[in-house]
Amino acid sequence: MTEPPQTEEGWFVLHDFRDVDWDAWRDAPDRERERAVAEGVEYLEDHEAVVDADEGTSAVFSVVGDKADLLVMHLRPTLDHLSTAERRFEHTALGEFTEQATSYVSVTEVSGYVSDAYFAEDEEEVDEGLKQYIEGKIKPELPDDEYVCFYPMDKRRGEEVNWYDLPFDERADLMAGHGETARKWGGKVDQIISSSLGLDDWEWGVTLFAGDAVDIKDIVYELRFDDATSKYGEFGSFFVGRRFPPADLGAYLRG
Amino acid sequence: MTEPPQTEEGWFVLHDFRDVDWDAWRDAPDRERERAVAEGVEYLEDHEAVVDADEGTSAVFSVVGDKADLLVMHLRPTLDHLSTAERRFEHTALGEFTEQATSYVSVTEVSGYVSDAYFAEDEEEVDEGLKQYIEGKIKPELPDDEYVCFYPMDKRRGEEVNWYDLPFDERADLMAGHGETARKWGGKVDQIISSSLGLDDWEWGVTLFAGDAVDIKDIVYELRFDDATSKYGEFGSFFVGRRFPPADLGAYLRG
Amino acid sequence: MTEPPQTEEGWFVLHDFRDVDWDAWRDAPDRERERAVAEGVEYLEDHEAVVDADEGTSAVFSVVGDKADLLVMHLRPTLDHLSTAERRFEHTALGEFTEQATSYVSVTEVSGYVSDAYFAEDEEEVDEGLKQYIEGKIKPELPDDEYVCFYPMDKRRGEEVNWYDLPFDERADLMAGHGETARKWGGKVDQIISSSLGLDDWEWGVTLFAGDAVDIKDIVYELRFDDATSKYGEFGSFFVGRRFPPADLGAYLRG
Amino acid sequence: MTEPPQTEEGWFVLHDFRDVDWDAWRDAPDRERERAVAEGVEYLEDHEAVVDADEGTSAVFSVVGDKADLLVMHLRPTLDHLSTAERRFEHTALGEFTEQATSYVSVTEVSGYVSDAYFAEDEEEVDEGLKQYIEGKIKPELPDDEYVCFYPMDKRRGEEVNWYDLPFDERADLMAGHGETARKWGGKVDQIISSSLGLDDWEWGVTLFAGDAVDIKDIVYELRFDDATSKYGEFGSFFVGRRFPPADLGAYLRG
Amino acid sequence: MTEPPQTEEGWFVLHDFRDVDWDAWRDAPDRERERAVAEGVEYLEDHEAVVDADEGTSAVFSVVGDKADLLVMHLRPTLDHLSTAERRFEHTALGEFTEQATSYVSVTEVSGYVSDAYFAEDEEEVDEGLKQYIEGKIKPELPDDEYVCFYPMDKRRGEEVNWYDLPFDERADLMAGHGETARKWGGKVDQIISSSLGLDDWEWGVTLFAGDAVDIKDIVYELRFDDATSKYGEFGSFFVGRRFPPADLGAYLRG
Repeated sequence: MTEPPQTEEGWFVLHDFRDVDWDAWRDAPDRERERAVAEGVEYLEDHEAVVDADEGTSAVFSVVGDKADLLVMHLRPTLDHLSTAERRFEHTALGEFTEQATSYVSVTEVSGYVSDAYFAEDEEEVDEGLKQYIEGKIKPELPDDEYVCFYPMDKRRGEEVNWYDLPFDERADLMAGHGETARKWGGKVDQIISSSLGLDDWEWGVTLFAGDAVDIKDIVYELRFDDATSKYGEFGSFFVGRRFPPADLGAYLRG
Repeated sequence: MTEPPQTEEGWFVLHDFRDVDWDAWRDAPDRERERAVAEGVEYLEDHEAVVDADEGTSAVFSVVGDKADLLVMHLRPTLDHLSTAERRFEHTALGEFTEQATSYVSVTEVSGYVSDAYFAEDEEEVDEGLKQYIEGKIKPELPDDEYVCFYPMDKRRGEEVNWYDLPFDERADLMAGHGETARKWGGKVDQIISSSLGLDDWEWGVTLFAGDAVDIKDIVYELRFDDATSKYGEFGSFFVGRRFPPADLGAYLRG
Repeated sequence: MTEPPQTEEGWFVLHDFRDVDWDAWRDAPDRERERAVAEGVEYLEDHEAVVDADEGTSAVFSVVGDKADLLVMHLRPTLDHLSTAERRFEHTALGEFTEQATSYVSVTEVSGYVSDAYFAEDEEEVDEGLKQYIEGKIKPELPDDEYVCFYPMDKRRGEEVNWYDLPFDERADLMAGHGETARKWGGKVDQIISSSLGLDDWEWGVTLFAGDAVDIKDIVYELRFDDATSKYGEFGSFFVGRRFPPADLGAYLRG
Repeated sequence: MTEPPQTEEGWFVLHDFRDVDWDAWRDAPDRERERAVAEGVEYLEDHEAVVDADEGTSAVFSVVGDKADLLVMHLRPTLDHLSTAERRFEHTALGEFTEQATSYVSVTEVSGYVSDAYFAEDEEEVDEGLKQYIEGKIKPELPDDEYVCFYPMDKRRGEEVNWYDLPFDERADLMAGHGETARKWGGKVDQIISSSLGLDDWEWGVTLFAGDAVDIKDIVYELRFDDATSKYGEFGSFFVGRRFPPADLGAYLRG
Repeated sequence: MTEPPQTEEGWFVLHDFRDVDWDAWRDAPDRERERAVAEGVEYLEDHEAVVDADEGTSAVFSVVGDKADLLVMHLRPTLDHLSTAERRFEHTALGEFTEQATSYVSVTEVSGYVSDAYFAEDEEEVDEGLKQYIEGKIKPELPDDEYVCFYPMDKRRGEEVNWYDLPFDERADLMAGHGETARKWGGKVDQIISSSLGLDDWEWGVTLFAGDAVDIKDIVYELRFDDATSKYGEFGSFFVGRRFPPADLGAYLRG
């Protein structure tokens, strides 16, 4: 058995992807549509304001393409908060016009591959700046008005090429190289890494944010050439969209 | 042909995952919803009390994410009990508001890899403590109020890396190492192992219970590095949720 | 090109898996349900009595889990008989309460790997006992009141491990070892082997029958360790259920 | 880059698989069913008579199992003819009782692997008999009243075993061996080979016709042992059915 | 880490595949169908005229086979334009008769493998002709009245054969060979290459245009033998259809 990395967790995350039932929307009387928008805006504003928990954050995004129309993303201290948020959406009048297209359950995580100082035995010794950096990773803010990209991923466990068989140091080196490439994009692309081992079908979820959608394409392409990814990365579906303020929900639905 | 392990079986298991039809729920008059809750609570309480069989256990869990809303888990002496429990659910008024999202059929099992004393030829010789330990594995109690994680798994039969081609002793060593890692989590994470060879699409089902959902993530991550898993484990979908008492069904459905 | 085995075929087989629409069943008036049961029982009894053909056999099974509710299995001399039986089911009032969940089309087969005497050039020379044994394999009886397991399978055609590249004698040896293991279960587990090359998506269908469902799990597990299976077997979905007499259809549907 | 074979194309092919909505059929008044049969027969007879194009051929088949109920097969000079035929079916009253289960788009093809004389530079030199043979392959007649088998296939492009990396001569040898085996079945099994590169999800479609359904199983099994198939063949779903004259549509639907 | 190529992007692309609900279409009164056609034509003409943006292009295609009936293709400067175009379609009366079958999101791209002069550090030095060539690739015109073929693709990241592990020069050589083969088809087949890394489930989308549908089959077949494809190309679904002017929408729907 090779050594697992130490990890620190923050908030649980629900990526809740919704399809709008456009046929029902077109057919509905104005009054019902207005009620759906009003209750939808209230739900989204309440959750962005985190009235349901002591801490956390939420946001809503439009999604391009057939895989979903909306992404509602919740980060909360417990799985129970996510379960409640997911069900409360269904009880709004907006819920009546949507179906859950897919979803992803995970928990924010930083690992000891690259932040070993943070995992030093004597907690007192950890630098305050580092503490804040880690805190920002596991209890992140979601940027306004930016493009979002979500995808789940695994580290390969092939018959010949197997991440989990590598010695810790080799994995740490690969992750350091990966992090270096990602850091070059600092200021242009932000990312949230969350673990889904035991929680959902892939091992991690990655959520990227960028002001320019081409930067999303470019960072995913560039990272595909680093050794941690080219040899060991396996990917699920990619979703792309853009954050909007809850107050714009009506404009979104009206096209 | 390499030697198969000896096994001992206990109860048959049905993981019955259900989707709530939230559109129908929202549209239903109060009286119908109350009836659904009443009949649902009665069904769940009766099955938790095992009024349908001489022995066994049942529990209901909320499930986070789009893969299901509820998990009803039944353990019973025969497949026939599971078949009846599955159909009786459909005949409740609660059944009207749910569809079967997916399910899993298996039978609890302990194997001779790590408990060879138990499989000694002379049954008399088996220690009473060991007998009770095995009995607890194959006729388990389900812990109250805890998080649950279910996933199905296979042992790899790759062209090069093939569990079923390994000599018995090598498999026993790997399982011993695996068990050692799992045992470190004793008191924090409980597990039920059930075999589904010939019963469902994967070879085993694993059901984990923990008071802290992060422990579920952590044990699944740590185990991924032990050799039995890193080289030989293949996994299906992961489901995560939390047990609740039947009396809370109404609260769950009302959000 | 390596040498294919000789084969002898018997009856064509349709495994017709049906989902019950429990919502429609619950909502239907008693009269309609009674009619569905009456027409369903008549259909099943007529087909078990093989009123539609000169020879063959049929049976109905309950199925545990979400993959299906009922399995209706028909064995008949021609594909045309299966096509008619499949459509006639749709025309019963029971058809109204079911959808076809999935199905499997195949033809019973014995191969020359293990019964080469049977395939001797001079047909006269074949022993009468052997003839009857083969006849029992390709025109089998379906046991009453037993558990059933169905799964489709392929022989692996991997880049390195390829059944179809092995010399005939090696395949024959592997099949002999496989048969020996299976024979140990004689009296406890019966099996029907049917070929689906050109007829359905896998190469063979396997239907097992056993009085004790644990024996199904045990034989599938034990066979997984023989070389023909560990290296060369690939499997589709597994279905498990239990035969019941047509007259019990109403009891089944009423839960 | 290894050398591609020369090819000659004939008619475009649509395999249009249809599911009958048996619930709607059972519930429909006689008048509507009669109209569906009348319009269905007219559509099928018109297309078998190729009233929509200068040349081509069409046929209708019943299909056994859940993958489809009917296969309507059209061969025409252009993709546009197929597009029109596909849509016109939807405008018949029969269309109301069916959904498109799946389909396959391809174009008949012969390749220079085995018929290099045909691809000689000087067209004048090509033997008239060979021309007619090729013409029969790419503008085939569909046999009456026979069993049909359709499946799509690829040539393997594995990491180690890769058809497209083989030198032309090696591919030609393999195809010659394949053709030899297939020719042994001449008179018992006819086949149409059509290419779907750029047109559908696999590289080729294969349509087999035989008076005895066991011959379909036997040829597919025997071919699986020739080197072109055992090492390089990859297969999609298999569909099996039987041709019937359009006038029998009503009898088919009535069971 | 091997060196990624430089890239230049142009317009974002939405391939919006739509299924027509033929049952609803047949059942609709003439007035509703006329309104659907009128609003559909207006939507398509407005988008072909790019009234919604400063630049871009759109086109509509019929699609053969069950995977879709219509393809509406939009190229626009931003993802937001695509999101709006997608939703506006849903708000037309035509939207009522269609469902989104699938879709693909990407952005046109040229890479530095074969056009390194264009990516020279001193932009002034770039030849005007080359600039226009590149501009034509990333801001393409869509040809009238031609057959279209769309498919998504990846470069293989296998355990042994891994595009992303190759040195830049080797990849550049392979792409040069690939480009040479493609260029032989100049005048007969046009292609649009768009990247979907981070935007959709595959790495690139390829859209081919040809006056003769056989040329689509032939180029895809020929390219399969070049080393960049035979060893490194992996493909998703293939869609084939033909462009038509918006004014012909009614004729298309009426069959």
